[in-house]
Amino acid sequence: MIHVKKRTITLNCDMGESFGHWSMGNDELVMPWVDMANIACGFHASDPHVMSRTIDFAIQHDVQIGAHPGYPDLQGFGRRSMSFTEEEICEILIYQIGALKALCESKNTDVSYVKPHGALYNDMMANEDVFRAVADAVSCFNIPLMILASGNNQRYLDIADNYDVPLLFEAFADRTYLANGQLTPRSMPNAVLTSEDTILSQIKQIAEYGRVSTSDGVIIPIEADTICVHGDNDAAIELIAKIRAQLDA
Amino acid sequence: MIHVKKRTITLNCDMGESFGHWSMGNDELVMPWVDMANIACGFHASDPHVMSRTIDFAIQHDVQIGAHPGYPDLQGFGRRSMSFTEEEICEILIYQIGALKALCESKNTDVSYVKPHGALYNDMMANEDVFRAVADAVSCFNIPLMILASGNNQRYLDIADNYDVPLLFEAFADRTYLANGQLTPRSMPNAVLTSEDTILSQIKQIAEYGRVSTSDGVIIPIEADTICVHGDNDAAIELIAKIRAQLDA
Amino acid sequence: MIHVKKRTITLNCDMGESFGHWSMGNDELVMPWVDMANIACGFHASDPHVMSRTIDFAIQHDVQIGAHPGYPDLQGFGRRSMSFTEEEICEILIYQIGALKALCESKNTDVSYVKPHGALYNDMMANEDVFRAVADAVSCFNIPLMILASGNNQRYLDIADNYDVPLLFEAFADRTYLANGQLTPRSMPNAVLTSEDTILSQIKQIAEYGRVSTSDGVIIPIEADTICVHGDNDAAIELIAKIRAQLDA
Amino acid sequence: MIHVKKRTITLNCDMGESFGHWSMGNDELVMPWVDMANIACGFHASDPHVMSRTIDFAIQHDVQIGAHPGYPDLQGFGRRSMSFTEEEICEILIYQIGALKALCESKNTDVSYVKPHGALYNDMMANEDVFRAVADAVSCFNIPLMILASGNNQRYLDIADNYDVPLLFEAFADRTYLANGQLTPRSMPNAVLTSEDTILSQIKQIAEYGRVSTSDGVIIPIEADTICVHGDNDAAIELIAKIRAQLDA
Repeated sequence: MIHVKKRTITLNCDMGESFGHWSMGNDELVMPWVDMANIACGFHASDPHVMSRTIDFAIQHDVQIGAHPGYPDLQGFGRRSMSFTEEEICEILIYQIGALKALCESKNTDVSYVKPHGALYNDMMANEDVFRAVADAVSCFNIPLMILASGNNQRYLDIADNYDVPLLFEAFADRTYLANGQLTPRSMPNAVLTSEDTILSQIKQIAEYGRVSTSDGVIIPIEADTICVHGDNDAAIELIAKIRAQLDA
Repeated sequence: MIHVKKRTITLNCDMGESFGHWSMGNDELVMPWVDMANIACGFHASDPHVMSRTIDFAIQHDVQIGAHPGYPDLQGFGRRSMSFTEEEICEILIYQIGALKALCESKNTDVSYVKPHGALYNDMMANEDVFRAVADAVSCFNIPLMILASGNNQRYLDIADNYDVPLLFEAFADRTYLANGQLTPRSMPNAVLTSEDTILSQIKQIAEYGRVSTSDGVIIPIEADTICVHGDNDAAIELIAKIRAQLDA
Repeated sequence: MIHVKKRTITLNCDMGESFGHWSMGNDELVMPWVDMANIACGFHASDPHVMSRTIDFAIQHDVQIGAHPGYPDLQGFGRRSMSFTEEEICEILIYQIGALKALCESKNTDVSYVKPHGALYNDMMANEDVFRAVADAVSCFNIPLMILASGNNQRYLDIADNYDVPLLFEAFADRTYLANGQLTPRSMPNAVLTSEDTILSQIKQIAEYGRVSTSDGVIIPIEADTICVHGDNDAAIELIAKIRAQLDA
Repeated sequence: MIHVKKRTITLNCDMGESFGHWSMGNDELVMPWVDMANIACGFHASDPHVMSRTIDFAIQHDVQIGAHPGYPDLQGFGRRSMSFTEEEICEILIYQIGALKALCESKNTDVSYVKPHGALYNDMMANEDVFRAVADAVSCFNIPLMILASGNNQRYLDIADNYDVPLLFEAFADRTYLANGQLTPRSMPNAVLTSEDTILSQIKQIAEYGRVSTSDGVIIPIEADTICVHGDNDAAIELIAKIRAQLDA
């Protein structure tokens, strides 16, 4: 079994999502609070200059760098599923991870893990063939793959084992779960948590007890190594600071 | 002095210049005859799938793989100069070389050298700041940089020394030279050689004697490690075979 | 009922599918034999220069110009379905048709019809909401929309009526039909006709009698205004010439 | 002489510069104060959806719509000069203006003028061949071309006359002029005005007296039809409101 439970839960955040003259996110405000920066690799967002700047910033704050590759669709921000063969998915991942890795190495750091983006992330969780293609690509780099924590962790661990790829499981700070361990679909009520107290309490439950209270009222086990946070606005960044404080307490 | 004269002159050719459903070049016909394949890296031509296929083909024919990065301009095929800062040039090169390197490593081979493409190649030869930026990027990979052989080889060697980057000098099979060691500009008559005999004779002169007869009628020294050939059509491919035979004789 | 049966069946062909320095198709060899040129509009193939050149060529051969818009995916050649809202589909169509129309008007000609490309064409035939979005976009230009002839022509005519958009129905020279009037899926045997005689005979049957012999052995009615031909290689172009001769006889 | 002095000076602003999921500018705050919206056409910024939304917004505020075409370079935001033939410049302009025009016509409005963007604007002012190519493209639409007001207005009027293209001259709210009627280059001190009072006073001078006090201390005539303003931040938008109030007084 490759997956080794980390002692402490970490915070990860998508970063480096600007493109050319367009700015996105508040990387400079979020970076001080997180442990892992998922850096976009130029296909759905970012470009070599944005990547380089974001790496510098992660180094400055001693934050682990993860590759955050996506489908080649800047206009759709990688949120539209696209039809690729498994071979092609493997190739676009190796390309993007390799590009980020070289920029990291030029600054004496490295890519520590891979977390696919948007529609590619969803396709990977929904389609075992896509998951295999992703695992195959990541196996070239000897680093872990970050995927969604759910009631099915073991199923993905078994597949990833074939590629000698360790997995990191992430939970979302502001999403609710169903009794089957899946995320409540956004189309259902209560899919997203909005109360700061409830979010902090869910994170505490996950981090300390490996459990979560589902939207349909039961308590289920959920194993997560890391919590995904978003820094879209001032309120979100304040919340990250509070989550950080709670985890460090 | 980093530059070590290679005993035998090699043949290099731009490869992997297809894109998506568009095909370009005759890689399968050229690959058997050359020593070095300059593979486009997705910015001016190629894509991860074309790169992967071209790497496979180079491996099959035991041909050295070089990164052939360019400006980000698919429509213009990287032949239009674009204004980038030196920092940005370094970043787009590391990105492209790293992407190709990762694809190579996934197939247990590696990138052996870098040769910039099109307008970036010309800008590098014409502008010392661009050349420094290119050398800086290549230095991250501990491989040589291929540039144009001319009467100014030493000047480039001196600069590249600062980056610990070895240089490879290439001559063109079908271009003529001026007495000052520069290529005859295409705007002048006799810039391009069309006679097969003259081309073969010029290559013999370069390869065996390190000399070339200029278009203005003198003989000058020219140090070249490699000859650049093109496989655009059937006649060009036949010529490559003859050049190969002559070099091997 | 908007749709008016045309007296004679026409030949249409996808054209202007080159991009930048990449060439595709044999427009110059096909143009003399067809009636309608479906010109790509820059999203899945073509660019303003290729479009302009292709318009010139259509004018020279007195061939009707149709807009051939697609999804924004050069690398995938518009053959990958992409998730767009109906509003967005309408917008990307108006954009592309408008761009081609302006280039046509600058040369004193015009766009005469619209035929969506690739995955957008398939999505339009399979999804009524997409078909409505396409009809809505085409209605802005007061020209017909070309779609696939099938046993369901009337269903599409009824919807298009709401947008005052005339329809043109196209049959494929080399595809077979099922008893229900649909194309035989490519995954089934006999989906594609390869014998020149059979192709010519099917076209004769469609053009003269409005009928087709299906791959499952019955004869069904099929109303088509135009036949789609492809000019991918020398044999294909010879076949187009024969189809032309047969239709003109 | 095509150019007809407009009785009142107008305010124009670049709009619709968002792209996909990336937002830029404060169009909703600026639109109420200006007379003319220069809408990006998808090559250097914007996309069909952003264009459509911006047209809606201009209609709502009864603001004239201008096409704001640029070089095809999203990453560089059209601010890098690119080498195109005059024929190609004409083609990329007709394509972009036509696309915006069709979107406008689908909403029962129209494109009223053209103002090139960024590097294309600068190249047009600096290179007479580029200016001719732009004028040629704009002549297809029977609308005016907006260019930089300077001491050389007449020279451009003379050339544009050959294409029957009326010109609109724009001055910049916050740039200073030299005695020769050119803008003070940004590399020189005092190139940009920062004091709100000085800006308002320069606009008053231009609008009421057709004169401007140059950075080298003389007063020169400057004929401008419109003032270009920017809405980058809150302070800039407050300034636009003040300029509007002064012009309306």
